[in-house]
Amino acid sequence: MTGRFRLFCAGVLLLLATASMEGTLRAMPPVERMTLSNQMVLLASGEPSLPFVTLQLLIDAGSRRDAAGEEGAAYLTAKALLLGTARRGEKAINEELDFLGASLHSSPGRDYATFTLRVLKKDLERGLDLFLEVLTQPAFPQEEVKREVQKTLAALQAAEDRPDDVAEKAFQENLFLRGPYRHPVEGTRKTISSLTRETVERFYRKHYHPNRSILAVAGDITAGEVKTLLASRFEKWPRGAVAEAPGENVFARGPKTVKIDRKLSQATILLGHEGISRDNPDFYALTVMNYILGGGGFSSRLMEEIRNKKGLAYSVYSFFDPGKLPGSFQVALQTKNVSAREAVVIAREQMKRIQQEPVSEKEIEGARKYLIGSFPM
Amino acid sequence: MTGRFRLFCAGVLLLLATASMEGTLRAMPPVERMTLSNQMVLLASGEPSLPFVTLQLLIDAGSRRDAAGEEGAAYLTAKALLLGTARRGEKAINEELDFLGASLHSSPGRDYATFTLRVLKKDLERGLDLFLEVLTQPAFPQEEVKREVQKTLAALQAAEDRPDDVAEKAFQENLFLRGPYRHPVEGTRKTISSLTRETVERFYRKHYHPNRSILAVAGDITAGEVKTLLASRFEKWPRGAVAEAPGENVFARGPKTVKIDRKLSQATILLGHEGISRDNPDFYALTVMNYILGGGGFSSRLMEEIRNKKGLAYSVYSFFDPGKLPGSFQVALQTKNVSAREAVVIAREQMKRIQQEPVSEKEIEGARKYLIGSFPM
Repeated sequence: MTGRFRLFCAGVLLLLATASMEGTLRAMPPVERMTLSNQMVLLASGEPSLPFVTLQLLIDAGSRRDAAGEEGAAYLTAKALLLGTARRGEKAINEELDFLGASLHSSPGRDYATFTLRVLKKDLERGLDLFLEVLTQPAFPQEEVKREVQKTLAALQAAEDRPDDVAEKAFQENLFLRGPYRHPVEGTRKTISSLTRETVERFYRKHYHPNRSILAVAGDITAGEVKTLLASRFEKWPRGAVAEAPGENVFARGPKTVKIDRKLSQATILLGHEGISRDNPDFYALTVMNYILGGGGFSSRLMEEIRNKKGLAYSVYSFFDPGKLPGSFQVALQTKNVSAREAVVIAREQMKRIQQEPVSEKEIEGARKYLIGSFPM
Repeated sequence: MTGRFRLFCAGVLLLLATASMEGTLRAMPPVERMTLSNQMVLLASGEPSLPFVTLQLLIDAGSRRDAAGEEGAAYLTAKALLLGTARRGEKAINEELDFLGASLHSSPGRDYATFTLRVLKKDLERGLDLFLEVLTQPAFPQEEVKREVQKTLAALQAAEDRPDDVAEKAFQENLFLRGPYRHPVEGTRKTISSLTRETVERFYRKHYHPNRSILAVAGDITAGEVKTLLASRFEKWPRGAVAEAPGENVFARGPKTVKIDRKLSQATILLGHEGISRDNPDFYALTVMNYILGGGGFSSRLMEEIRNKKGLAYSVYSFFDPGKLPGSFQVALQTKNVSAREAVVIAREQMKRIQQEPVSEKEIEGARKYLIGSFPM
């Protein structure tokens, strides 16, 4: 879920830039792009009608960078940055945030670790100081890191009780034979238990560099402030050596069915195969195709055939999950146990149909209208 | 979850009005309030920097209005409005929405049924026409209503597999001995199965009136357009007789422990008692108190004692759930099964402590800063 949402946000950022160039969607504030002297990329978009400023920093330090046997290190590192700095403990960091009414989150993902700060305009300088302190002077205190490992294990345990999480994990493990996307971002029970503050510090030193980072700023901020407050501060963060690129994913070929038996009243079904990477030139064509097939619109073919006509599914949709490397394509549905087989047959029929027959003009037009119209929302 | 989010939104609306009067938060557009000739209340707030218009209509037709034996009728009615009108079937409605890139959702709640339309400014008139058609000329087609009943049963079944839903349902049933908040908004397996298009039509005729409705409009809309496009259209919706007010809730007194045995790796614990209604004069004082106790801040007492110091909980927080009638107060936590008892003991200690000892100046100041600072976000 989080992964999909992040993907959506990244897509919005890209589109924002495009839209402002075309000038058709007047409400999109222009996005300025600059590269700092330490090679950090800075995207800024001022919108003075907002009372706050949001900073989002993406660092190329996602779980695809995890070393073998240390799966979960990227996740733990991103979380551990918020646990203490050279100058402040975790409690002092949280009290400062509460005092500012600010929020600071870290979202470790597959490709990027993301850090998001939201702060009122009037507290921007104090917020920035904390943001940079956390980012460039983390202390990784032993006890707090240990507790974070325990929390991650607990989260992993809780996920075992959620059917969709269980299904998604099994799907990924079986689709990716090996490669950087195969393991869960959080790692596995076995690897997490072996992570220490030393693993975290090593991962941090290797991957947290401004020249591997993109900073996006939006909200009540002027071009002058971007320069004096932001660029000047972030430019002090020294460059580092670029780690070698992670390997490729190897996908399973041929059909395979994995059944997980649990005493549940509904079946959760994931059906899919190898997908694409985000820079695939067919990305937008596939977005339109997937919209027609099952991409969330009320009137998608999967919705119509499985949910509306037959009333088989409680929910059904399809999506591509593209990353820096190719991810998966999935059809997800929940249905009564007895309807599982019928729902799968229809889903496969619809997948085949959209491969073999051209879609209608009306469907293309509907998809186009929807995707353009709903974009600014 | 939905309930809490809706509550939050309602709170924001109220506060928006206050903030604009004080003029301290310059970014809040002013809210204009008017009463139409059919007694519908209209709140409008223009913000031309947004490319779309959002309409939210609250109708006093929530599940607290369900008749005995027809629990779930309010929910089904709100859903069924989108299933067809005198002029269009469900598919045509969804195609029109997709074509406009608009979204139209109904969220049936405890106090209100809420309908939200988001539409691009350029399509506002077409969106409004559809919104009013759905609202004032629903057809409640037999087959579609039947299918919605099946979907609701499936959703109820799926909820049975989610520990937090199971716990919340048991909590509500045991806290409310009887009264309008006792049953789930969706109804129960037994009552849902008995609902028909006739129940829905009866519920609609009794409770869907403009004089029981509040319409809030925000986005790219001028005062002139509010008058010519909105007020003129909505004023044609004729008033209806006001149904009598629902009864009071009767709360359980004295301690009670309910255990639900499932083969899960984590314990989900809800701990609480009678709460307040939204118009309680202590609402803001309790918001500050609850923030200090466990209201979501990083440094709340429950977080500090249970999660940070002891590492017992995967998540812990507390909240009031006020409605038109008094709702509940709850402490919610997830922990390993073996830690359940210890976590509950600490939670109860903290509940007692905040009742008996004054909170510190520092805590009050932190809560005040946080609640003011984070409000515009």
